Amino acid sequence: MQGIYLVTDQDLCLGRPLTSVVADAVRAGIACVQLREKNAAFRDFLNQALALKPILTSAGIPLLINDRVDIALAAGADGVHLGQTDMPYEAARRLLGPAAVIGLSVETWEDVVAAQDLDVDYLGVSPIFVTPTKTDTKPPWGLEGLAEIRAYSRHSLVAIGGLNAANALAIIRAGADSVAVVSAICSAKDPFAAARNLVTCFDSLQ
Amino acid sequence: MQGIYLVTDQDLCLGRPLTSVVADAVRAGIACVQLREKNAAFRDFLNQALALKPILTSAGIPLLINDRVDIALAAGADGVHLGQTDMPYEAARRLLGPAAVIGLSVETWEDVVAAQDLDVDYLGVSPIFVTPTKTDTKPPWGLEGLAEIRAYSRHSLVAIGGLNAANALAIIRAGADSVAVVSAICSAKDPFAAARNLVTCFDSLQ
Repeated sequence: MQGIYLVTDQDLCLGRPLTSVVADAVRAGIACVQLREKNAAFRDFLNQALALKPILTSAGIPLLINDRVDIALAAGADGVHLGQTDMPYEAARRLLGPAAVIGLSVETWEDVVAAQDLDVDYLGVSPIFVTPTKTDTKPPWGLEGLAEIRAYSRHSLVAIGGLNAANALAIIRAGADSVAVVSAICSAKDPFAAARNLVTCFDSLQ
Repeated sequence: MQGIYLVTDQDLCLGRPLTSVVADAVRAGIACVQLREKNAAFRDFLNQALALKPILTSAGIPLLINDRVDIALAAGADGVHLGQTDMPYEAARRLLGPAAVIGLSVETWEDVVAAQDLDVDYLGVSPIFVTPTKTDTKPPWGLEGLAEIRAYSRHSLVAIGGLNAANALAIIRAGADSVAVVSAICSAKDPFAAARNLVTCFDSLQ
């Protein structure tokens, strides 16, 4: 996992359809989309996944589903992002198969150590900073925590939580392989320009 | 699907572990268990399924999971019970395979008609009577509604909603292949005796 990673939040899209925000971000060159619909009913969640699928497939960008292996399976998504209280990683891998992209959130050092022996595709280092988007999190890792995980972990690291164009460079320099954003794209006045700005910033360091 | 069908509700078990209530009911001769955990966190729901599995497998009784295909897959359950707003039947069948037991709730006549062309294993006719156990339901079918569905539908019918030893005979006579109960067993002073009573009542009409 490398590049700009968009986590969706329909409620933060300023009334615009999620498909249009995602299509803008895809045009701008993002690397991955995670559909996160914490408050959606099952069928709405599934329908959002089915609506995003062709946009992402045609661009060769993976669609990951937050939490729900059943939605990922039913929508034919490329994988899931799991929190520590979601389906255990091994069960998700068994159900989704070896080709699926499976990421796992790490919120404590114990999580990081436990993940070392798993063949997860990436760790979601969460949260880097305090963020209003997600309030049920552990204390933030900060840049130092991210750097410590980088020094220890064998996994690709997706940093998330309070990230935007202003701090993306520092995040990548601290060791993130991927910068995940929610409102920095979803709530941007111009999602394409905001995503393009992040992608350019990321590319400048490669 | 034929016989007494136990739908679980940990909150109604008067503090007893669900495994003990289910084991009692199994000993009494029930035909099926549906694990329904509307308020449980994912891991608790999954752990309940994993705890029930050996009890039911050794008795040759199917374990169905309410709503969640992901829990059913991860726990190796025998199938799912789907509401009209859960995963669409066709998707669930595709993911669970031809041998899975898949039931579908019907709350309106339109649901009954739409289900006629599906190869569901049974229809959950819900609710028969008003019930305090589940409050998000459509108007009750009553005995007449159940009899009308029996006359029309090609499917096995599991009646649910306000059922107990006092009305089970009438329910079976109206055409139910199976009588589903929640509190009549979960909240019984003696779950074994309550289940045994229902099983005897059912068997007396076969």
